[in-house]
Amino acid sequence: MSFRKFSSDADVIAFARQHSDLFTADEALKVEEIGDGNINFVYRVSGASASLIIKQALPYVRIIGEGWPLSQDRVRIEAEALQLEAKYCPDLVPRVYSYDAEQCAIVMEDIGAFANLRVVMVQRQKLPLLAEHLGRFLADTLFYTSDLYLDTYEKKSLVKGFINPDLCKISEELFFWDPYCDHERNSINELIRADAEQLWQDTALKLEVARLKAKFLNQAEALLHGDLHSGSVFANESGTKIIDPEFAYVGPAGFDIGSIIGNYLLNVAGQANQAGDHAERSDYQQWLLAGICTLWNTFEQGFRQHMQTETRDPSLQLEEYADWYLCELLQDSLGYAGTEIIRRTIGLAHVMDLESIEDAERRADSERLALKLGQVLIKHRATINSIDQVIDMLRQQLHCR
Amino acid sequence: MSFRKFSSDADVIAFARQHSDLFTADEALKVEEIGDGNINFVYRVSGASASLIIKQALPYVRIIGEGWPLSQDRVRIEAEALQLEAKYCPDLVPRVYSYDAEQCAIVMEDIGAFANLRVVMVQRQKLPLLAEHLGRFLADTLFYTSDLYLDTYEKKSLVKGFINPDLCKISEELFFWDPYCDHERNSINELIRADAEQLWQDTALKLEVARLKAKFLNQAEALLHGDLHSGSVFANESGTKIIDPEFAYVGPAGFDIGSIIGNYLLNVAGQANQAGDHAERSDYQQWLLAGICTLWNTFEQGFRQHMQTETRDPSLQLEEYADWYLCELLQDSLGYAGTEIIRRTIGLAHVMDLESIEDAERRADSERLALKLGQVLIKHRATINSIDQVIDMLRQQLHCR
Repeated sequence: MSFRKFSSDADVIAFARQHSDLFTADEALKVEEIGDGNINFVYRVSGASASLIIKQALPYVRIIGEGWPLSQDRVRIEAEALQLEAKYCPDLVPRVYSYDAEQCAIVMEDIGAFANLRVVMVQRQKLPLLAEHLGRFLADTLFYTSDLYLDTYEKKSLVKGFINPDLCKISEELFFWDPYCDHERNSINELIRADAEQLWQDTALKLEVARLKAKFLNQAEALLHGDLHSGSVFANESGTKIIDPEFAYVGPAGFDIGSIIGNYLLNVAGQANQAGDHAERSDYQQWLLAGICTLWNTFEQGFRQHMQTETRDPSLQLEEYADWYLCELLQDSLGYAGTEIIRRTIGLAHVMDLESIEDAERRADSERLALKLGQVLIKHRATINSIDQVIDMLRQQLHCR
Repeated sequence: MSFRKFSSDADVIAFARQHSDLFTADEALKVEEIGDGNINFVYRVSGASASLIIKQALPYVRIIGEGWPLSQDRVRIEAEALQLEAKYCPDLVPRVYSYDAEQCAIVMEDIGAFANLRVVMVQRQKLPLLAEHLGRFLADTLFYTSDLYLDTYEKKSLVKGFINPDLCKISEELFFWDPYCDHERNSINELIRADAEQLWQDTALKLEVARLKAKFLNQAEALLHGDLHSGSVFANESGTKIIDPEFAYVGPAGFDIGSIIGNYLLNVAGQANQAGDHAERSDYQQWLLAGICTLWNTFEQGFRQHMQTETRDPSLQLEEYADWYLCELLQDSLGYAGTEIIRRTIGLAHVMDLESIEDAERRADSERLALKLGQVLIKHRATINSIDQVIDMLRQQLHCR
C-alpha cells in the first residue's frame, strides 16, 4: 500500500486502532481535526477511556497546497527526534506510540491537558515549573546529541540521519534574510516601516546576522528541535511538553536556546501594550525576565554537570573549556534570540504576543521595543559574560523608554 | 564478483586494460608496487607508450594488517573528492580514469614526473609556482564546496556523501589528543621529553586545542582534502599535483590551509639543523616563509574574488562579512598549523624534515623550535589580523634563538 491522505473519519479511526492498544474493541471513537499550524494534518481520536493524536504529513504545505511541495521525510525526522528526546527527558515530550513510514503518520500521546505556551503568556499565566523544564530539556537534548557525549561514529551517523534541507531552507530564509531587506514575504505594520528601513541600512547588524547564519548553516553541534517557539510548547502548572520537532537537524546549540528566549522577549515586548492593568503587565514582564534567568541557569547547571561527569572525549574535559564553551553558547543564544524577535516582528510569520494588540499605534510601540531588543541582543552579545548581565541589559531597555 | 585483493601482476594488468584505453592491445605492460604510505596498495602499470596508477584499498591498514580494520568506503571518498576537485582545478589533481566500487580501486593518472614535496623541501629545491598553486587549490576547493557557493540542498548532500568517521577519528586522536598527554602512541625524542612534559601542563594551550578540536568535529564548512601535508603534494618547476584525499570530509576550511602551512614550518624548523651550508639553509627558511605569504595571499585574493562575484546567498555578500570571515579563517589556519607541527614532533607520525637530522642533539634543537612555533601559533592566533603579522611573528621566533 502506498501513501494516501486519510480520507474519512473511519479511515483515521481504523489507523488509530491498528497503531495503538489504547482503545477497547467495542469502544466508540470520534475524530476531530485540530491542526498544528499550517503545514500538516493533525487529528485527535478519542473514546470513553482514552485519546491519542495522529499527525500526517502531506507532500506539500497544507495551507498552500501542491504549489509548495515539502518533503514528507519531515515526519520521519519528527518521529525520530521525539524518540531521541524521549530517551533523555521522557516527561517533556509526547510519547510516540507508533510511526508509519508509508502513511507518513505519527500516532502519539494526546497532550490535551496542557495549554499552548503562547496563549498562556498572552493571558499572563505564571507557570511555576516552565523555565526549569525548558532549561532541563535544552541541557539534556543538546548535551547527549553532541560530540561531548557521542563518539565519532554515533555523531556522524546522527548528522547523516537528520539531514533536513527542506525545513532548514525555510529557517535560513525567514530568520536570516527576509527581515533584513525589503522582501515581498515580509509583513510590516505601516507605522514601523521607517524603523524597518533603518534596520535594513544597519551594516553592523547585518554583519552579525551573517555570522549567525553561517553558524546555522555550518555548525553541526547538537541535534536541535529547530523550531522551539512558544507555539511548540504546551504546559500547565505541573508539566511541560515540547512538540513538533520536524525542523530537527544537527545545528548550533544556541539556536534552540535563543529561539525560546526570543519568544519570552516577544511577550515582554507585547505586554508593554497589551490590554489590562499596567502594574499586572509590568509584573508579568518581570516574571518573564526572571524566567529567562531560571531557564538559562537550569540549562547551564545541567549542561555543566553533564560536561563534568559524562564528557567522553578527554580533550574536551578541561574545566576551562566548559567555561569558554558556555560563555560562547550564551552569546550565540542571545544572537539567535535577537533574530527570532526581529523575524517575528517584520518578517513573514508574526506572533499573537504582538498581533493581539488591537490598536495599531500601541502595537507599533511594542514592535519598536521588540526590534530594539532584537538589535541590542545581536549587536552587543559579544560583551556579555553572564545571564545577570543579560537581564540588566534587558531591564535597561525597558526602563529607558 | 565480490571484492578481492589483486593477487598477481597479471591481475593488475588485466584490471588496467579493462579500466582505461591508454594502452594498445599488443603493448607489453609491467607492474611495480610503489606504495603511498602505510594504508593502501598502489601500483604503477606501464607500457612503452603510457603509464597509470592503480590504488586499491583493503578492509584494513596495510602495514598493520587485519588487526586495524578500516572502512573501504575511503576509496569511494577519495575518488569522489578527486573528481570534485578536478571540476575546479583540473591541473592540480591527478585525473581519475576510472573508479571501481566493487574492487575498491581507483585507476588514475601517473604523476611520476612530479616529485614528492617533502623530499623537495628536505633537498631545499625552490619551486617557483608551488605556493601559488597551493593557494589556488585551497581557494577553489574550499569556496566551491561551501555554503557561500552551494545551495542548501547541494551543501547538505555534500555533507552526507562525505561522512567519513573512520578517517576523521584518526585525525581527531592524532592531532588533538595524543600529543597533549603522555600517550602510548606518541614517539618522543628522549632529549625533548622535558619539553613535551611542560607542554602537557600548559592549560592555556590545551584550551585552545580543545577549541580547535571542537571546530574539527562540528564545523561543516567546506569539503576538505583532510590530509594536506607535504607527502600529499607532488610538484616540479612547472606543475603541482595534490593527491590522496581519502580523509576528505566537510570540515573547517582552516584545517587544510593550516595543515600545509604547518608542513612548510616543519621544514623551516628542520632547516635549522639539517646538513649543509648554514647560509643556504637560512636562505631556504626565508624562501619557505615567503612561500607561506604567497600561499595565503593567493588563497585570500582568489577566495575574496569568488566571494565578491559568486556568493549566491545574498545574506553572505556583505564586504564586511568577507573581511571578518577571512580574518577568522587566517586565525583558524594558524591554530591548525600549530597542531600539525606539534603532532608531527611528539605524536605518532613524524616527518622526514625533522627525522632526517641524524644527530639527536641537533634534531632536538629543531624539534624544540617546532614545538615553540606550534605553541605560539596556537596561543597567539587571536591577535593576528594579517599574514604579514604572521611572518613577522615567525621571523622573531627564528631570530630570538
